[in-house]
Amino acid sequence: MDKVLGIDIGGTSIKVGLFSTEGILEAVSKIPTGEIVSEAAFAVVTEGLKSLLAENGATPDDVIAIGLDVPGPVDDEGKVGMLANIELDPDGLQAAIKRAFKRANLAFVNDANAAALGELWQGTAKGASSFVLIAIGTGVGGGVVCNGKLVSGAFGAGGEIGHVTVNRDETESCGCGRKGCLEQYASATGIVRSYLSECDKLGIEPVKLDGPTDTLSVFNAHRAGDKAAKKAISQMSDCLGYAMAQISVVVDPQIYLIGGGVGGGFKLYAEELRAAFRKYCLAPSVATRILPASLGNDAAMYGCAYEALLERGE
Amino acid sequence: MDKVLGIDIGGTSIKVGLFSTEGILEAVSKIPTGEIVSEAAFAVVTEGLKSLLAENGATPDDVIAIGLDVPGPVDDEGKVGMLANIELDPDGLQAAIKRAFKRANLAFVNDANAAALGELWQGTAKGASSFVLIAIGTGVGGGVVCNGKLVSGAFGAGGEIGHVTVNRDETESCGCGRKGCLEQYASATGIVRSYLSECDKLGIEPVKLDGPTDTLSVFNAHRAGDKAAKKAISQMSDCLGYAMAQISVVVDPQIYLIGGGVGGGFKLYAEELRAAFRKYCLAPSVATRILPASLGNDAAMYGCAYEALLERGE
Repeated sequence: MDKVLGIDIGGTSIKVGLFSTEGILEAVSKIPTGEIVSEAAFAVVTEGLKSLLAENGATPDDVIAIGLDVPGPVDDEGKVGMLANIELDPDGLQAAIKRAFKRANLAFVNDANAAALGELWQGTAKGASSFVLIAIGTGVGGGVVCNGKLVSGAFGAGGEIGHVTVNRDETESCGCGRKGCLEQYASATGIVRSYLSECDKLGIEPVKLDGPTDTLSVFNAHRAGDKAAKKAISQMSDCLGYAMAQISVVVDPQIYLIGGGVGGGFKLYAEELRAAFRKYCLAPSVATRILPASLGNDAAMYGCAYEALLERGE
Repeated sequence: MDKVLGIDIGGTSIKVGLFSTEGILEAVSKIPTGEIVSEAAFAVVTEGLKSLLAENGATPDDVIAIGLDVPGPVDDEGKVGMLANIELDPDGLQAAIKRAFKRANLAFVNDANAAALGELWQGTAKGASSFVLIAIGTGVGGGVVCNGKLVSGAFGAGGEIGHVTVNRDETESCGCGRKGCLEQYASATGIVRSYLSECDKLGIEPVKLDGPTDTLSVFNAHRAGDKAAKKAISQMSDCLGYAMAQISVVVDPQIYLIGGGVGGGFKLYAEELRAAFRKYCLAPSVATRILPASLGNDAAMYGCAYEALLERGE
């Protein structure tokens, strides 16, 4: 029986999903790898994949497509760009996997783009012809789908919507070197920074935070009536709604999906976010739906598998 | 021999191009129509099309695709939205054309989107998989092509890039009701307005202008060393480069094409525009090409014909 693998590549381990061609997740395995830059490490990956298959009554010859999602740019040709946060030799890994899985089509996909494809295959966006996934975590990533296909971009920057400019007057720099990016206000880091700054302005003692991305505590403070938390989350919603209005004059999607870690708090800011988008958007787009993503941390694993499967059919 | 027609619908006349299926323009005809809202007017259109065919040794049965471009929104399903500037009953016209051209696939396309498709078929963007056409005339329109396909948008607002916000501090309203849109600074109207305002600031007597969209005179003044004209064109380039940087973090095209009437002055501001884009864009997109469009006023006629032909093949 034909199978598809989706491989979520992290800094020191990979998470692998074994899928049917219809997108049913049949098994998941986490494989510790260390840095993936040597033949020994590539073998750890390929042997791990073979074990997962064997445990589930399948063989390498059953695998027709393998997707790999990476935390960095991948261009329209499937070429992986510079990876800032993991040690990976994509060409070496690709060659090793090709040798071990001869029938399989391979595809690298950027992680936020992969998450969007996952939602398209088996998540909230199933059946939608156009949508934009906004993945809010430490940073703000995105995946843009138009005419049922992912828009990776000519230089791998498609869906880099954390870098829509929302404040031209900002004086602090974003990680990208520019100033006033969405990510500076709407990422987990940005929300916590806004919260602390509002506490300072209002003379409120901040709640105890578990690090610089602990939005959970900020959300809980908001639920408990904390004014600084309310202000920080309003600012996040306003910036996000404004950025979405900019995106809509370019691609005008049917749906926005809010995912990533901060996406988990969607209910808390959904109303404010929808109001902000409607305030800023061009009239025809006012009916655009804004919904939570549904596959959580598995979205990218689903999505890279789907992309590898799609490319095979072309 | 199979033929394709592209129909550019204006307020009081239509311009029709007769194409081979390879995109060679074999003949053009301009047909005065008046408002296209009655059976009598629909008959003027269909008879005009038949005459053009007869003059070129073809019959209605040779026509396999007919595109119609309209100055207004058309959604992903091909449905025409509200048309502000022309009197047209799209459903009535469509039915009349279908009766007269039984083999032909019909497609309505927004004019800026059609221009983009024209450039993709036979213009500067021939063979490109992704690009954005920016059509600068009285307003600023756009057409976004990703993965070789036009992005019309779920609500017909795809490519409405004249409405990217470039100045959140603007107090005057754009035609869309929002404030600070690209169109307010980079359209022909916007350039002339900036020029007059700069003349006022600098105490310079403006050159004689032939109406509120006469950018030709402003460009000529710039060539003659007029400081206010230089300032207005710099502002236009800066706003346009900034808006393009916003577009690139969403769809990251290979190429930007500058078209429309103001596109004709491309050489005059090309260098400033490229510098502005590079200043504002995310690092990976710095190599994006910025080029003049090449089909001029015929682009939309080519493009709607191409869309009708493409949709037939699906």
